[in-house]
Amino acid sequence: MSLPLSGKPADSDLSFVIAALTARFEQRASTVPGIRQTHANSLTWVAPQLPDIVIFPDTTEEIVEIVKLCAAHRVPMIPFGTGTSFEGHVNAPWGGVCIDTSRMNRLLAVHAEDLDCVIQPGMTRKALNEQLRDTGLFFPIDPGADASLGGMVSTRASGTNAVRYGTMKDNVISLQVVLPNGEVMTTARRAKKSSAGYDLTRLMVGAEGTLGIISEITLRLAGIPEAISAGICPFPSVEAACDATIATIQSGLPVARIELADQLQVKAFNLYSNLTLPETPMLFVEFHGTEHGVKEQAERFGDIASEFGGGPFEWATKPEDRSRLWQARHDAYWSALALRPGCKVIATDVCVPISRLAECVVATQDDIKASGLVAPIVGHVGDGNFHLTLLCKMDDSSEIETCRAFLHRLVERSLAMEGTCTGEHGVGQEKMKYLLKEHPPATLDAMRAIKRAFDPLNLMNPGKVVAV
Amino acid sequence: MSLPLSGKPADSDLSFVIAALTARFEQRASTVPGIRQTHANSLTWVAPQLPDIVIFPDTTEEIVEIVKLCAAHRVPMIPFGTGTSFEGHVNAPWGGVCIDTSRMNRLLAVHAEDLDCVIQPGMTRKALNEQLRDTGLFFPIDPGADASLGGMVSTRASGTNAVRYGTMKDNVISLQVVLPNGEVMTTARRAKKSSAGYDLTRLMVGAEGTLGIISEITLRLAGIPEAISAGICPFPSVEAACDATIATIQSGLPVARIELADQLQVKAFNLYSNLTLPETPMLFVEFHGTEHGVKEQAERFGDIASEFGGGPFEWATKPEDRSRLWQARHDAYWSALALRPGCKVIATDVCVPISRLAECVVATQDDIKASGLVAPIVGHVGDGNFHLTLLCKMDDSSEIETCRAFLHRLVERSLAMEGTCTGEHGVGQEKMKYLLKEHPPATLDAMRAIKRAFDPLNLMNPGKVVAV
Repeated sequence: MSLPLSGKPADSDLSFVIAALTARFEQRASTVPGIRQTHANSLTWVAPQLPDIVIFPDTTEEIVEIVKLCAAHRVPMIPFGTGTSFEGHVNAPWGGVCIDTSRMNRLLAVHAEDLDCVIQPGMTRKALNEQLRDTGLFFPIDPGADASLGGMVSTRASGTNAVRYGTMKDNVISLQVVLPNGEVMTTARRAKKSSAGYDLTRLMVGAEGTLGIISEITLRLAGIPEAISAGICPFPSVEAACDATIATIQSGLPVARIELADQLQVKAFNLYSNLTLPETPMLFVEFHGTEHGVKEQAERFGDIASEFGGGPFEWATKPEDRSRLWQARHDAYWSALALRPGCKVIATDVCVPISRLAECVVATQDDIKASGLVAPIVGHVGDGNFHLTLLCKMDDSSEIETCRAFLHRLVERSLAMEGTCTGEHGVGQEKMKYLLKEHPPATLDAMRAIKRAFDPLNLMNPGKVVAV
Repeated sequence: MSLPLSGKPADSDLSFVIAALTARFEQRASTVPGIRQTHANSLTWVAPQLPDIVIFPDTTEEIVEIVKLCAAHRVPMIPFGTGTSFEGHVNAPWGGVCIDTSRMNRLLAVHAEDLDCVIQPGMTRKALNEQLRDTGLFFPIDPGADASLGGMVSTRASGTNAVRYGTMKDNVISLQVVLPNGEVMTTARRAKKSSAGYDLTRLMVGAEGTLGIISEITLRLAGIPEAISAGICPFPSVEAACDATIATIQSGLPVARIELADQLQVKAFNLYSNLTLPETPMLFVEFHGTEHGVKEQAERFGDIASEFGGGPFEWATKPEDRSRLWQARHDAYWSALALRPGCKVIATDVCVPISRLAECVVATQDDIKASGLVAPIVGHVGDGNFHLTLLCKMDDSSEIETCRAFLHRLVERSLAMEGTCTGEHGVGQEKMKYLLKEHPPATLDAMRAIKRAFDPLNLMNPGKVVAV
């Protein structure tokens, strides 16, 4: 089975659609090159492919209008949030209309008793938590960027809290989606669970905008914990840190965050954030619970860490110290960049069963060294997921080659260990080739069959995930 | 859009397939009426529709053989686990081949470090936990019946632990599935999370065997908690019990189980299990954690309960007392039956946002009373999910009518409160009509498009979920 290639629409069709959208959306339509450029920027080395026009709708109804017009004239559509994805998710390989949801950024309802809220897709995670501040609730998923929630749904994002709170797959209750034919579907009721038919919610989570445009999101929220304790714990080696992580997870300790930084990343934190951490592999750990609970958890973690030669486990009891630590962790991308100014950061992620994590990280470090590359590692190690921030000199074609070959080996290594080519960044354009290695042919055929069933004209974010 | 009706296969095709399967599977093929009858039994009043033959495969390869033969001759296939579903899930409206997976009941691998295991689909949840006993791990999902895990995946089952551990949707890592064309797909790698393409795992969870036959399951496991404390707490009213539940969930107390039994159900427990519980609405509660943790949680719950007029909260500290209580809770079906011997139990479930739970349960009790029916209520109230065990005299056609009209109102009431027609039992044949009310037309169209994409000949468990 193979999808029809989406060709560039006929010039006359494209001109008609651009003219019609410009007339209809006025100031909320733009064909300015600079605007089109920022809507095709991946933050990595993926070459930008510009849309022909960018539209900023305000409502679901306006998205429906745009989609129906595009569908009628066979013009590709690319949903857009904040453009903070890494794998070419928002590129427009055959041009078309970029639908930027950033104006659809409102919190529509908070149901505090039900621990849920309804938002528009362009709202970012920080804006949401800002608006939730007085409710005693928060939304726990925190990828590095202040991404839009629509984008986070679409890439099945997660982050440092996933070990405790799950990923986007676990925290979306329902979606409103404008389908490629312009019809509007809601995937589920607001009840916390249901067995009423196929799980269209989870099908849309991680579909990267290839099956429809998300126009409204019902999210599950969590109560802000009564007590939070956080700390850092140095380890003699990456293996020791990973083994301590495995033991922590296995012991059932409900750790809220457990993040690895390798020696080079710790050095980067020190340089960038003016810290004086010992430059050795380190776990950043956080516990959520009651006052007694977090104390008990912390003590247990300290015991586990020392069994593996880690420690001393140092607490940041003051909120400001805690924030400073986690801010450093969240600035991993920028601190890595500062290690080698003038380079491009190529951020990527893989995920393996946690039992293989130490082996995978160590082999990757060896490979980095052997390749002569600079690439600090941070990891959501409680999930077996780790990130590389590979620093690549973009004016050195031989280094680019070395980096590409290294990244290829990274994915191969992860797949050989029953892992996945991406734990939380998604497929986009760049990892499509790895899907073919990760899944057997029947699985890819099933994905293509779904794509075709939803989008027979291949107009919705074409050339991503499974398009061929 | 509408699916082609699956007609009965041509007599010659059916005869050929029956003869071929009988020759191939010998003792593991049966056309005996009694065997066919037990494979079309719903436990409720759904009229049985018998398959023409029942096959007991031992391997994925044998399932592939059966599916390819059936597909070539346009003969319907019905996957079968333990037959403990309620809504006509395993009926064979156009006859065909029942594929009984009960011999595929082996634990294939336990990865203790990764907290997962790989099993065959015919293994039941009790058998799995029996075999896991020495690993320190357990599988937490516990519907009333000792169902097969394949069936539990297919109905997106949950149970009393879901408030803490999630439903089947949250506890399946990967599936091996024999697709309707006989190809074998695996839905995901064994890594704990992934963003590598569409979430086929979640699409198969809850698909009720209409998209393929599950032939292998990778499940997430949980560590057996260090300490468990359980107790019961009487309340002056159902509202008070529901309100205490809402407050418990909102406070972030990580309750492992919180189950409501209404006054009539408590009476049934006393009669059936020889208990002396006060006959008033009651919450059955359980906490998992460390020794200190569960003590702290229990004290907090006691405080919350008393705020709503509940209590005293009585602890069952001894494991045998705890088992006795939970056994009574698990025997809800049988104890209800004992209230009115000779009746048929019509078990059903709905689920609403927890903020509407008290209102929904009370309105339902009023309706039961006004209708002159006998129907104790038990509920997984932490999820907003509750069950009726409606006792119906099957020789009284007017009572049957009354019961049907009442059940219809129950679903309508749930839907009017943003709820779902089924929280954990599934759609089968009986709730197909409610899917049309629960979801907008575009959502149903999307489900039908998926069904058609996977099963264009409509041979895989036809006439369930979205078939028309």
